[in-house]
Amino acid sequence: MMKNNDRPLILISNDDGYQAKGIRRLIEFVRPLGDVIVCAPDGPRSGFSCAFSATTPLLLTLREEQEGLQVWSSNGTPVDCVKLALSELVPRKPDLVLGGINHGDNGSVNTHYSGTMGVVMEGCMKYIPSIAYSLCDYHADADFEPLRPYIERFTRKVLDEGLPKGVCLNVNFPKMPLSAINAQPAYKGVRMCRMAYGTWGSEVTRCHHPRGYDYYWMVGHYQNDEPEAEDTDNWALAHGYIAITPTHMDVTAYDYMKHAHFE
Amino acid sequence: MMKNNDRPLILISNDDGYQAKGIRRLIEFVRPLGDVIVCAPDGPRSGFSCAFSATTPLLLTLREEQEGLQVWSSNGTPVDCVKLALSELVPRKPDLVLGGINHGDNGSVNTHYSGTMGVVMEGCMKYIPSIAYSLCDYHADADFEPLRPYIERFTRKVLDEGLPKGVCLNVNFPKMPLSAINAQPAYKGVRMCRMAYGTWGSEVTRCHHPRGYDYYWMVGHYQNDEPEAEDTDNWALAHGYIAITPTHMDVTAYDYMKHAHFE
Repeated sequence: MMKNNDRPLILISNDDGYQAKGIRRLIEFVRPLGDVIVCAPDGPRSGFSCAFSATTPLLLTLREEQEGLQVWSSNGTPVDCVKLALSELVPRKPDLVLGGINHGDNGSVNTHYSGTMGVVMEGCMKYIPSIAYSLCDYHADADFEPLRPYIERFTRKVLDEGLPKGVCLNVNFPKMPLSAINAQPAYKGVRMCRMAYGTWGSEVTRCHHPRGYDYYWMVGHYQNDEPEAEDTDNWALAHGYIAITPTHMDVTAYDYMKHAHFE
Repeated sequence: MMKNNDRPLILISNDDGYQAKGIRRLIEFVRPLGDVIVCAPDGPRSGFSCAFSATTPLLLTLREEQEGLQVWSSNGTPVDCVKLALSELVPRKPDLVLGGINHGDNGSVNTHYSGTMGVVMEGCMKYIPSIAYSLCDYHADADFEPLRPYIERFTRKVLDEGLPKGVCLNVNFPKMPLSAINAQPAYKGVRMCRMAYGTWGSEVTRCHHPRGYDYYWMVGHYQNDEPEAEDTDNWALAHGYIAITPTHMDVTAYDYMKHAHFE
């Protein structure tokens, strides 16, 4: 299907499912930049992190095919989707892996829980330049249009310049400020950020089943533990900036490694 | 149940399930050091990373209670187990979170996939000193006895000294060398390591279902991409050393952050 070998090949997945508005818009935004293969979960997989399916038989279903575009779905996790695509679907190693556009904020510690970041870490672990795009708006019908010029630009830049080995990008967009209605500049700008320290609390709600036993829902409220720190993704997003957090697959704590002594 | 408030409180989980030999031995090894609460999955959850259950109602079942020990199981992920325990089971914030002992190697990029590391990252994200213990032996009846003195020592040291904010430990033990049969020193020693760069390949096996469709199993072969690098966990384990990889929850790629420019 991918006839034009001169065009970049872009692999896209997400954790909201192949039918989510966010991934549909992302496909539309980047199709001018290359051939696109999508392999995404067949339904929501939020909070799936870098999980893969060690014990579940996985399925692949072709959902759509056009010139320069294939859309596949799978019953697996976001990471499964990337692994399946790289093994079974792509005609060659992709030039880029994109995750998103996620419906919701993937800043701070959400990095660790996010299936969208799972997609991008998986691309990074295969040494493919990879970018996660997220919008701080959980609604199914969120407005992704203001992101278009930024996503085109960031994607093109990474296609052109690549990323260092082991580094991927976690790009979060604040929810569109109201001023945009008046065609004012939508975002204050772009900030390179570090991951904020933050904590999820009140994460468990206990409920009582009619049959007499307790069960629990995972919910939770996020708290930024360093709201004054202007170099963080949380600060940037809270102040109307687009936050780009370069993220490393090497999680070694080098400072501690050099000084700690165990025997 | 936890009567002695002077003793440290240790929360334990894993990804092999509460009945796995590895977690049973870990409980035994650390009970002399404090009161222990276990909350672990009700069956295997390998490869679950930091996944949590956003859409599944979760259950908690008390499996065992003794003086200074409670064992609970849950239908959730390893991370769910930690969140449930912290919210519903512990009488106070634990002094330590332990993951394992995992049946299998969690060095290099396995860090990102491992549910055992999910447990420990979750502890770390709650600012609790946390240690993952893994043995490079996948067998259900693996021999964990040689690990006992090391686990006692490392656990006691972290209980006494704590860990820096945002840092947890990923401790991997090589499979017991044969010399131990002759009561020779079992391990060559302990090395503080960085995470090796490595790649999983051949990760997907296609099978044909009797009903006529294809399905896929996730398997794969791991390759160390820098086998000569003596500062890595993979090198240490391959050469008979215990590998301690200090691991940071802050995944920001600081070097790139300082130099990259997007607008």
